[in-house]
Amino acid sequence: MSKTAKPKILWKGKFLRIMRLGRWEYAERVNAIAGVVIVAVTKQGNLLLTEQERVPVGKRVIELPAGLAGDTKGNETEELPLAAKRELLEETGYEAGELKWLTAGPPSPGLSSEMIIFFRAENLRRVSAGGGEGSEKIIVHEVPLRTCAKWLEEQSSAGLLIDPKVYAGLFFARQTG
Amino acid sequence: MSKTAKPKILWKGKFLRIMRLGRWEYAERVNAIAGVVIVAVTKQGNLLLTEQERVPVGKRVIELPAGLAGDTKGNETEELPLAAKRELLEETGYEAGELKWLTAGPPSPGLSSEMIIFFRAENLRRVSAGGGEGSEKIIVHEVPLRTCAKWLEEQSSAGLLIDPKVYAGLFFARQTG
Repeated sequence: MSKTAKPKILWKGKFLRIMRLGRWEYAERVNAIAGVVIVAVTKQGNLLLTEQERVPVGKRVIELPAGLAGDTKGNETEELPLAAKRELLEETGYEAGELKWLTAGPPSPGLSSEMIIFFRAENLRRVSAGGGEGSEKIIVHEVPLRTCAKWLEEQSSAGLLIDPKVYAGLFFARQTG
Repeated sequence: MSKTAKPKILWKGKFLRIMRLGRWEYAERVNAIAGVVIVAVTKQGNLLLTEQERVPVGKRVIELPAGLAGDTKGNETEELPLAAKRELLEETGYEAGELKWLTAGPPSPGLSSEMIIFFRAENLRRVSAGGGEGSEKIIVHEVPLRTCAKWLEEQSSAGLLIDPKVYAGLFFARQTG
């Protein structure tokens, strides 16, 4: 397969499309620039985590606060740190003073072209209840960093799923900023 | 949307299908049980990482050794630790004495039903060159744990992508087993 080969659209829906390049099939988001994920530790030393029902896996999932950049009409060129700030506020009710770029990469590079940008949120201030937009019904957990791994195991034993990005977040949260 | 609603197949390819439940579209693998990912630290204290060209993102990606369980004919019920052991050997040339379950979760729960199981590989012994099967052409990196975060930043600066699961692997690698 040559470097200049162009992927072909095999199917297109409202949110996703399926592309093929060579013998490789993969999923691609139709309406978003990238995903943003936020590592946010409060002044009390708690990591902010979300819990929500996720349709694709049919279970409640523990995740870092996250969302899509540029996925709403009129806002297609939204800057990534602004998207991260907006999603953190919508989901957790915390406003961040600063957002620092941590890493960017594909969470599932064999299956999808999706890219996720991780930000560290600093100088957090709670300004609202959070919970997400509209029908999202997100539960916010503030979990002490030093017991977080154990807490995650307990959630897993109780039948919730843990997005592995949470463990990446724990790695970054324990590093100095 | 009721709890008993069944997802509908919108499109089906050779490796993926697109499902819809309510207004949610998501991708699902057709032929595999789950993904397995291996956190493997050698006796010298090096984390094993892979580098390969990934078609969906069009770049070289640094990842933990990983693969699919049950994705080959006649082997559809492959046990997960065996799949992890096989993938580690194929990709890195290291044989693991034991594999310990670390966590299981969805790396992209808004986009796909994919589940990834993380294992810790213990008692590693190099028995072959690795590099993957057939056309995979995987480069193996053995990176000292204490300088790994810096090494990843250097790879990123050089234009490679880092799968965020690598940072989850770093978290587990630094925890005692």
